[in-house]
Amino acid sequence: MPSEELPAARPSEGWGVLHLAFSIAAPREPVSTAEAEALVAAFEGEPDQQVLAFSVLGQRADLGLLLIGPDLARLHALHRDLLATPLATRLVERPELSLVSITEASEYLEDDGSPRVAALRDSRLHPRDLPLRRLLCYYPMAKRRAGADNWYGLPFEDRKRLMYGHGALGRTFAGRVLQLITAATGLSDWEWVVTLLVDDPKAIKDVVYEMRYDEVSARYGEFGAFVVGLVAPFPQALREAGLTPS
Amino acid sequence: MPSEELPAARPSEGWGVLHLAFSIAAPREPVSTAEAEALVAAFEGEPDQQVLAFSVLGQRADLGLLLIGPDLARLHALHRDLLATPLATRLVERPELSLVSITEASEYLEDDGSPRVAALRDSRLHPRDLPLRRLLCYYPMAKRRAGADNWYGLPFEDRKRLMYGHGALGRTFAGRVLQLITAATGLSDWEWVVTLLVDDPKAIKDVVYEMRYDEVSARYGEFGAFVVGLVAPFPQALREAGLTPS
Amino acid sequence: MPSEELPAARPSEGWGVLHLAFSIAAPREPVSTAEAEALVAAFEGEPDQQVLAFSVLGQRADLGLLLIGPDLARLHALHRDLLATPLATRLVERPELSLVSITEASEYLEDDGSPRVAALRDSRLHPRDLPLRRLLCYYPMAKRRAGADNWYGLPFEDRKRLMYGHGALGRTFAGRVLQLITAATGLSDWEWVVTLLVDDPKAIKDVVYEMRYDEVSARYGEFGAFVVGLVAPFPQALREAGLTPS
Amino acid sequence: MPSEELPAARPSEGWGVLHLAFSIAAPREPVSTAEAEALVAAFEGEPDQQVLAFSVLGQRADLGLLLIGPDLARLHALHRDLLATPLATRLVERPELSLVSITEASEYLEDDGSPRVAALRDSRLHPRDLPLRRLLCYYPMAKRRAGADNWYGLPFEDRKRLMYGHGALGRTFAGRVLQLITAATGLSDWEWVVTLLVDDPKAIKDVVYEMRYDEVSARYGEFGAFVVGLVAPFPQALREAGLTPS
Amino acid sequence: MPSEELPAARPSEGWGVLHLAFSIAAPREPVSTAEAEALVAAFEGEPDQQVLAFSVLGQRADLGLLLIGPDLARLHALHRDLLATPLATRLVERPELSLVSITEASEYLEDDGSPRVAALRDSRLHPRDLPLRRLLCYYPMAKRRAGADNWYGLPFEDRKRLMYGHGALGRTFAGRVLQLITAATGLSDWEWVVTLLVDDPKAIKDVVYEMRYDEVSARYGEFGAFVVGLVAPFPQALREAGLTPS
Repeated sequence: MPSEELPAARPSEGWGVLHLAFSIAAPREPVSTAEAEALVAAFEGEPDQQVLAFSVLGQRADLGLLLIGPDLARLHALHRDLLATPLATRLVERPELSLVSITEASEYLEDDGSPRVAALRDSRLHPRDLPLRRLLCYYPMAKRRAGADNWYGLPFEDRKRLMYGHGALGRTFAGRVLQLITAATGLSDWEWVVTLLVDDPKAIKDVVYEMRYDEVSARYGEFGAFVVGLVAPFPQALREAGLTPS
Repeated sequence: MPSEELPAARPSEGWGVLHLAFSIAAPREPVSTAEAEALVAAFEGEPDQQVLAFSVLGQRADLGLLLIGPDLARLHALHRDLLATPLATRLVERPELSLVSITEASEYLEDDGSPRVAALRDSRLHPRDLPLRRLLCYYPMAKRRAGADNWYGLPFEDRKRLMYGHGALGRTFAGRVLQLITAATGLSDWEWVVTLLVDDPKAIKDVVYEMRYDEVSARYGEFGAFVVGLVAPFPQALREAGLTPS
Repeated sequence: MPSEELPAARPSEGWGVLHLAFSIAAPREPVSTAEAEALVAAFEGEPDQQVLAFSVLGQRADLGLLLIGPDLARLHALHRDLLATPLATRLVERPELSLVSITEASEYLEDDGSPRVAALRDSRLHPRDLPLRRLLCYYPMAKRRAGADNWYGLPFEDRKRLMYGHGALGRTFAGRVLQLITAATGLSDWEWVVTLLVDDPKAIKDVVYEMRYDEVSARYGEFGAFVVGLVAPFPQALREAGLTPS
Repeated sequence: MPSEELPAARPSEGWGVLHLAFSIAAPREPVSTAEAEALVAAFEGEPDQQVLAFSVLGQRADLGLLLIGPDLARLHALHRDLLATPLATRLVERPELSLVSITEASEYLEDDGSPRVAALRDSRLHPRDLPLRRLLCYYPMAKRRAGADNWYGLPFEDRKRLMYGHGALGRTFAGRVLQLITAATGLSDWEWVVTLLVDDPKAIKDVVYEMRYDEVSARYGEFGAFVVGLVAPFPQALREAGLTPS
Repeated sequence: MPSEELPAARPSEGWGVLHLAFSIAAPREPVSTAEAEALVAAFEGEPDQQVLAFSVLGQRADLGLLLIGPDLARLHALHRDLLATPLATRLVERPELSLVSITEASEYLEDDGSPRVAALRDSRLHPRDLPLRRLLCYYPMAKRRAGADNWYGLPFEDRKRLMYGHGALGRTFAGRVLQLITAATGLSDWEWVVTLLVDDPKAIKDVVYEMRYDEVSARYGEFGAFVVGLVAPFPQALREAGLTPS
């Protein structure tokens, strides 16, 4: 079935993002990956669409995919079409690691009409051509609503001040860590998805650990499952994950 | 077995609602969907019954169904009969995403005998002909009972005042979001099921996120698993979900 | 193996109760149910033993059984023997919905030697001939032990007063709702099992929801998984659940 | 492979204990149990080693085994060797109900050099020849560390006083209930495993329920999954659980 | 596929660590382990790389592996390559017991330029030639962030003082217990992984239990799943776990 059959589902602002995770079914016999590779190549040939592929460290999963683009229906179609290829006979879906989100500009970013803010907003809403760092880490996040530690009970100004300090701390990792934060409230069980791209595995630990002492995380942060993998072009990621092409 | 064998199980007020979710078993070989399509068409041919079908985004599930009608036994019969068709050989049930509920008019809505309130009550108790927006989101909800944040310890008047403000905020999304809230206490592990119908994926995020700052959600809301899918007529939803007809 | 081989395991006071739940394995091919039906008929032919069968609404399970009688070993034997019949080749056990309990008279019921209290105690300890209402709902329950809300830290007189009010509210549903509360502490992960028998699905929602505002539930109640099904004589319940006899 | 190959793993004080649980895979065809029975008999023929076997009530599991003896490697070897017999083709392991622990004398028991305390310590550290009561119940336990209810923040003298009262209440059940408490901290996710042996099912409910009002449990007790079964000699327990010998 | 294809993923400081756990699939037929043994031998033949293998006690898993070395990609390649050998046809991965971490020197260890501190830092960052004690225990850990018990809200000096006392208590177990603590924040759902190597099973209970009374654990410690196993050279560990070589 051609994927163009799906009517679009485009956010009125921002792009869609799907984080997908798969385990490889035993026995690990060779499988034809050509059809899947062609689907990914075609997808990436369309404007503003990208796939980040990674082989997952540990036993949590084997293969991870981050799909990004303006139309959630198009991302869904790629996901569905991949599952109709021979490759899918070796894959087991890991729904507990799957997340649906959309890109957003921070609500705490004041739009002063400057080109700087416009560029910042654009880079957050339309994260084109994400670079292939050696590792990718993603995890979902929510703000705590428990007794005296209720983020959603804070006045906007307090939240803005706290988030400003949080962001400033995060920016000290610029260069070492490329960070993408997307909105998941209502789309997943969590409120945001954080994706980190790094070359140094220690940088993942450093940024997540050091920011945990910031009040936004220390007092108000709730974190879900962390997935870490080795990024590579799709065909290479399949091999690094253990999928031997036939 | 003809489904008419089941004695009715009709709520004395309101209709029954079943939210069902399925994954597609690998390999995704073509399957005959004709019998399932005929069952759904027959069901919808009876008065006051409707099926909303959607292909689920992400890996949480593949196909979702919302069944609504006056008789829970009739909804159950459709569910059971679908599982006896060839289509069911490709489906895996996802019980953790399944919810049983019944429609209700809000207890905080004062019945002043006016036609306006009568119409409002009727639209909540008998939600006929729900429109096919591009996306459907559903999730279960409960009110918190924890320490100082115990909804069930609040006087009725306080709850009424809080819910009035909550509803007023919700109404600012009228047009962008069509919302159906059904009662699940005693029928599911949660107390209510929220179903949202939208054309803009961002509208799901906006309404759930913005309402989270309202005291009813911020302090008293507990939320379960969120499922989001692309709505389509049943035969098309099967294809969009990845079920290729033979 | 004849079930009479099992030495008895009779509570010194009260009867045993098993709540069992099963899903039906795909594909739903016809299966011989005759042997299972004969086992249930023989069980019910012995004194003081009863089976309530129901097809479960939603995807949580397909078939539910409530086994009740004076000897836990006899209930266990029926369960085991059912699993040795051809019917069992279509059933998947759902241990997360299974509960072991025994009947009990309330500890807060003062025995004043009157025939009224004696009859009440007898009806709770020996619930003979439970009626077949259209629906059955069961769920496990525990009393909270958290910070200031610790039921087990309350003096007996306070608990007695609270439970008296709780029971009085429950009795306003007499007629609409038949309720059986059995003791599960030490036998299951929860402390009690509540079984409701009703003809009106809305009555389940009404009684559980309205009692949640009573302090016993609002402040001290913890609730587990709710299972709701359509009650029918055993052979009919099998058909309503989707088990087509061969 | 002969089990004597395993180097010993003996606690410097106390014995090892394994609680194991299994479900029976469908279909329940006859299976040869002779090899498994021989392994258990050989194990019990060695000094200070015992197997308690029971068929589990409800759907949580079907067969339970309690292995006890001085050397954890020897217990492990029996477990491993049982899984290499034909019986194991009918068994599914239930890891969520499995516990590893070692016997211990209470740290609150003052060693005054008396023969009474020496005998008490010996009976706790070396529980030889546990009797076959009709029922066995086991569950894991931890002490709470939450806000104001933090057992591990209490001075030793307070804990000793509380545990003395707790033990005195427990001793009122002597005769009706035989109780074995073993240490699991670091060996399992919980801190202790409680094993109860009784003839009257109601005695399980009575002792666990009544002790829950004692401050040690009411305020500081956390409890895991409860497993209850019918005890019998190993070959009979296999039959009671539904394993028909070929 | 040769494992050298994977580009390196070396932390800028410290080594990578993978904790892996497997169950053995029934039936336990003989399997060729030669290829897996050759892979492990080759891995250990490269500098600074080690595999600790153990058969797991209880039913939580059957075989455990701890992989350590400077390059996470190399550890991943061994994991992946093992799953392509015949041995893997008998193994089922247990992702819930898998952890990714990196070695670290304690942040509370002041670097005074002395050879003593340099040696201590080196032994923590580069734990070469871990000894084969009879038992290995591992578990993940996080620091609590709940209400008044929020580790991440404490000043550095308070944390340093608390950790100093905690470490001093831990050092009283030197000799009986060899302890490795690795950093998991951002790499796993937990913040640290603790690995204990002992000859006496009671030493595991003693160290974890006694340290639980220290304020760092009592008030701020959160603990995940504990896995305990019998350590042996890889080929012997396979046999002790129940994998019979063909």
